[in-house]
Amino acid sequence: MTRRGAQAVPDLVARARAGEAAAVARLITLVEDASPLLREVMAALNPHTGRAHVLGITGAPGVGKSTSTNALVAGMRRAGKRVGVLAIDPSSPFSGGALLGDRVRMGDHALDKDVYIRSMGARGHLGGLAWSTPQAVRVLDAAGCDVVVVETVGVGQSEVEVAGLADTTLVLLAPGMGDGIQAAKAGILEVGDLYVVNKADREGAERTRRELRTMLTLGERPEGAWRPPVLMTVASTGEGVDDLLGELDRHAVWLEESGELTRRRTLRARREVEAIALAALRERWGGTDSGDDLEVLAASVAAGETDPYAAADRLVDGGGD
Amino acid sequence: MTRRGAQAVPDLVARARAGEAAAVARLITLVEDASPLLREVMAALNPHTGRAHVLGITGAPGVGKSTSTNALVAGMRRAGKRVGVLAIDPSSPFSGGALLGDRVRMGDHALDKDVYIRSMGARGHLGGLAWSTPQAVRVLDAAGCDVVVVETVGVGQSEVEVAGLADTTLVLLAPGMGDGIQAAKAGILEVGDLYVVNKADREGAERTRRELRTMLTLGERPEGAWRPPVLMTVASTGEGVDDLLGELDRHAVWLEESGELTRRRTLRARREVEAIALAALRERWGGTDSGDDLEVLAASVAAGETDPYAAADRLVDGGGD
Repeated sequence: MTRRGAQAVPDLVARARAGEAAAVARLITLVEDASPLLREVMAALNPHTGRAHVLGITGAPGVGKSTSTNALVAGMRRAGKRVGVLAIDPSSPFSGGALLGDRVRMGDHALDKDVYIRSMGARGHLGGLAWSTPQAVRVLDAAGCDVVVVETVGVGQSEVEVAGLADTTLVLLAPGMGDGIQAAKAGILEVGDLYVVNKADREGAERTRRELRTMLTLGERPEGAWRPPVLMTVASTGEGVDDLLGELDRHAVWLEESGELTRRRTLRARREVEAIALAALRERWGGTDSGDDLEVLAASVAAGETDPYAAADRLVDGGGD
Repeated sequence: MTRRGAQAVPDLVARARAGEAAAVARLITLVEDASPLLREVMAALNPHTGRAHVLGITGAPGVGKSTSTNALVAGMRRAGKRVGVLAIDPSSPFSGGALLGDRVRMGDHALDKDVYIRSMGARGHLGGLAWSTPQAVRVLDAAGCDVVVVETVGVGQSEVEVAGLADTTLVLLAPGMGDGIQAAKAGILEVGDLYVVNKADREGAERTRRELRTMLTLGERPEGAWRPPVLMTVASTGEGVDDLLGELDRHAVWLEESGELTRRRTLRARREVEAIALAALRERWGGTDSGDDLEVLAASVAAGETDPYAAADRLVDGGGD
């Protein structure tokens, strides 16, 4: 379990598929490091992917995301499911692997070998989270997870991003945090498949639910469309979590039957392929320190000799390598 | 001033250069809308750009960014400078032009014709803020602004982004908000050219300054390098603002004399050209609803037939159009 260093990809993939946590961790590190091995890794993982259901959980700081994730994972474990958790912190330049937190945060499951927990920061490599998260999901999927939970802090754009990654998106709120303009601003009303008012034992929970319901019913939805339910939980005590798990199952069935699952996964694959392609092009155009075409074009733009569109045209159509 | 609709680009650019606020506003709207006219706009603006000093101001919510910007703009106006302000809210899917705020927020300067104020949201168009902000800066630069202030909320990655856009980056803190780990996590210690502890009349201000100074001196800096000063202000009363303006001038001189200005502007141009090129490619690869190569590749990846790297290779090298 403590073996380290370069390992042959097929061996690593086989060990990850056999449930070896260290191999899973190593593969996710390769993703975080944007390793050149990834090309080979993804090709090897590919036949074993597509089985996991991806659940995105998002919400503003303080709504109880970690506690809720913890409670949901417990319920999924009771149902015999293998679960992977990716906790994404877009504000962190570190990967969580190196930094505190995980085992404390998700204490209930730290010793459960059928739960993989990993936090990922935006390491600032080419492509960012749009690039790394789907690949980390692929690792957990191929490692046999029935569910991969992707937990993100809701800071603006990230809700929209998590919705792009997930089969099902769960938006968490807490009483008193969801005033109309804020909710609309953060775009949460468009991304949720399920809404949960957590900390439902606090004052104002019922009002938050009512307001949210009103806002959600404002838009017309076509016949047969999914109508996002608004649930109430107290994740710290487990109250309401079984109902939530039931609704998650119901959404999974709807996704399958409506054809929406295929549509979402195609869209996700599209974003993933695009992110990989764009990262490859950026790399081809050169790193920050190289003296390549882009550098020459940039100097010309900075000097006011060329406008940025003309320079971009030359970069794209001139091949750039 | 209330004329609307399509206008010939040369006329619009001429009017913006003559100081007509409505024409400046219209050009920035073209940027926000990712208008096809931008290519022509940027070519027309290009000979008139490169003069403005770009000042990035960032900090966590609550440190007093708007008040500080307001106080700095007042000082710059006293010095006879024309000023543009771009308030960037990455969490907002709206542009500020349409939404409340600006005139109230920057009340002191709302009627000053030598101050342009505009807030911009991340409208979610191709390329995001990395794409739109430098182009909006170009508009204000060509319109004759001596200084363009780009104000961003410090939520993780955005500090790093603003530093990439600015000639000078000012990081704001407030007493009691800057504990070590948080500061390091947000990456602020790497991006600031100047640090300001605002609300310096509050308890703990001196301690915050001391801690920040200690953290800033931990890293070795080469001979001749800029050593970021840590200043104290009470922006609401104007206390310390003149000193800050003096330090900003000193940094501008250092940038010029050290050659760092050229280096930063080349890097900025590089990012700008790259963002435009990537947006153009994404557009070429097709919008979300079109039935193009990327769509076929995505379906194949979603079905597990192709791995995402192989698909990206085909997208990049197959031409994709």
